[in-house]
Amino acid sequence: MPSPRYLAIDAGGTSSRAVVIAADGTCLGRGRGGGGNPTSNGATAALAAIGTCSAAALAEAGADGREVAGVVVAAAGLGLDGPDGDGLARTLGRLGVHAPLFQTSDAVAAFHSGADQASGHVLIAGTGAAAQRVEDEAIVATADGLGWLIGDVGSGAWLGRRVVTAVADELDGRGTPTGLTPAVLGELGITSAARESRDEYRRPVALAQVLTAVYAEPAVRLARFAPLAFELPGDAVCDALLADAADGLARTLEAVMPSSRPATVVGTGGMLAHQPRLQELVVAAMAGRGRSITLRIVPDGLAGAALLALRHAGVTLTQELRDHVRASLYGATA
Amino acid sequence: MPSPRYLAIDAGGTSSRAVVIAADGTCLGRGRGGGGNPTSNGATAALAAIGTCSAAALAEAGADGREVAGVVVAAAGLGLDGPDGDGLARTLGRLGVHAPLFQTSDAVAAFHSGADQASGHVLIAGTGAAAQRVEDEAIVATADGLGWLIGDVGSGAWLGRRVVTAVADELDGRGTPTGLTPAVLGELGITSAARESRDEYRRPVALAQVLTAVYAEPAVRLARFAPLAFELPGDAVCDALLADAADGLARTLEAVMPSSRPATVVGTGGMLAHQPRLQELVVAAMAGRGRSITLRIVPDGLAGAALLALRHAGVTLTQELRDHVRASLYGATA
Repeated sequence: MPSPRYLAIDAGGTSSRAVVIAADGTCLGRGRGGGGNPTSNGATAALAAIGTCSAAALAEAGADGREVAGVVVAAAGLGLDGPDGDGLARTLGRLGVHAPLFQTSDAVAAFHSGADQASGHVLIAGTGAAAQRVEDEAIVATADGLGWLIGDVGSGAWLGRRVVTAVADELDGRGTPTGLTPAVLGELGITSAARESRDEYRRPVALAQVLTAVYAEPAVRLARFAPLAFELPGDAVCDALLADAADGLARTLEAVMPSSRPATVVGTGGMLAHQPRLQELVVAAMAGRGRSITLRIVPDGLAGAALLALRHAGVTLTQELRDHVRASLYGATA
Repeated sequence: MPSPRYLAIDAGGTSSRAVVIAADGTCLGRGRGGGGNPTSNGATAALAAIGTCSAAALAEAGADGREVAGVVVAAAGLGLDGPDGDGLARTLGRLGVHAPLFQTSDAVAAFHSGADQASGHVLIAGTGAAAQRVEDEAIVATADGLGWLIGDVGSGAWLGRRVVTAVADELDGRGTPTGLTPAVLGELGITSAARESRDEYRRPVALAQVLTAVYAEPAVRLARFAPLAFELPGDAVCDALLADAADGLARTLEAVMPSSRPATVVGTGGMLAHQPRLQELVVAAMAGRGRSITLRIVPDGLAGAALLALRHAGVTLTQELRDHVRASLYGATA
């Protein structure tokens, strides 16, 4: 009889990741698929993406679905099971996987990707932003995550909108000159000549072109301008925007941290994970609020989902096992 | 031969107004129609609305279209003439009106509804917000008017979004308690019981219901919550929001006022026209910037369009004539 394998899936809005691990936590195979978040992708596409990444991980592991002894799927929102209530089980069943199946939230999985304790805090800043307090596999408090229109303070969509607003304000004569203006105009393919000519409202033609571009797409797409704010160190407008973003994230995090004891907080999401300056600013903003935190950055919830799959199979999560799963999935430095 | 009549039309996004006046400025008849802004309503619907309100005004005046000696149409944006270039002339021609026709912007018309000089400034705060410097019938400077996503600071859409954000922040545990919360929940038909129960993220069910309601409609519809901020005098959150709105409008106005001499500024737009407290706060915010202004509020651009129609017909705009047109259209106090 072959030794048991475990399947862990982190189903995100942009892409889904699956891993097959051995009982000792060693990564045996990985797979990727499209967006697997039922809220943003729809249940059918989400299930297809989960099937794709799982099949790829099983193939790389050279494993048969019947060898899988346990599955954890991490996803934001519910609804993966579709109207019939067994969509996920059927999707995995087609791969020969009929093992016990557990669903958890993406935030819980991300937390366990980085945490050494069963309980603690996770701060997410990607296109959106939220903080949660996790106890084992339960979310016991949430702050923000209210979306681009009235929340997600400090997120990519939030920062990107402020970047474009700063540019529009400068072109409109109400703002402070900033290096963001040539950067955003360049990104949009707007020529510098368009800054010199004026439309019938006596505004720079470049401003009208910015408005046309910005209102032509969904508001969350403004997140694509957020990275520009990190590329201009010393620019006063960028510095102020990043300080505001960090302060907003700190306020969100503080709202789910009842105790003021020093704490390690798991951080994830594309913007927080890829911008060390934002990490530093968040830690500093928390210090300014009298909160001493250490941020432990993780790329995703895959290691957490893998660890939870082992635990659901009765394996005790020692520090050694946590470290081994992380090293096996993310490399030696994680 | 009958004495000449003049037709003036103020084509707004929500409704259009027409008036037939005599050469001495006396109002002879009025009419109303649907939205006549080609940008937000489309050229076909805008032209139909202009036809409707014009026909009603002619009927009330007991005038034949052939008696009309001049027409001014005020509208935001261009495009009223449609692809053929003569949509407006044909629409009026169907009413027997073949007189010289002039188009002007809604801001220029609003300015002349209130101004005693040919040149000056107009501040608009309705669903959107903008300021313009007008010289005769030309716009020589514009600030803001950049739309709900990255501009319109201090507008109804801007303030309404902040009202809902303040409510969401309180429900989310990050905000300051405010009377806006019961007011907005009441407006949305959300029960107070929904504030007590929690969803799977441990958030108040009322918060999830607010999100569902807010994301189900276009963002500019948040403007409907703006009036709530004026109904809670002494509420610290409302006071701060109104101060921010007034400060934003003052910054916008200042951007089109190169001189710091005391000035009369024409104010219009639903929010500014209907909220005396906002008028006071804008004047105070300008004073804080070292600018002494007097706000003269007008309901719309109809009197301005009427005065411009007379002037295009060669009539000199004396102060007496301006006052007579305003009194005839808006009542004795205007």
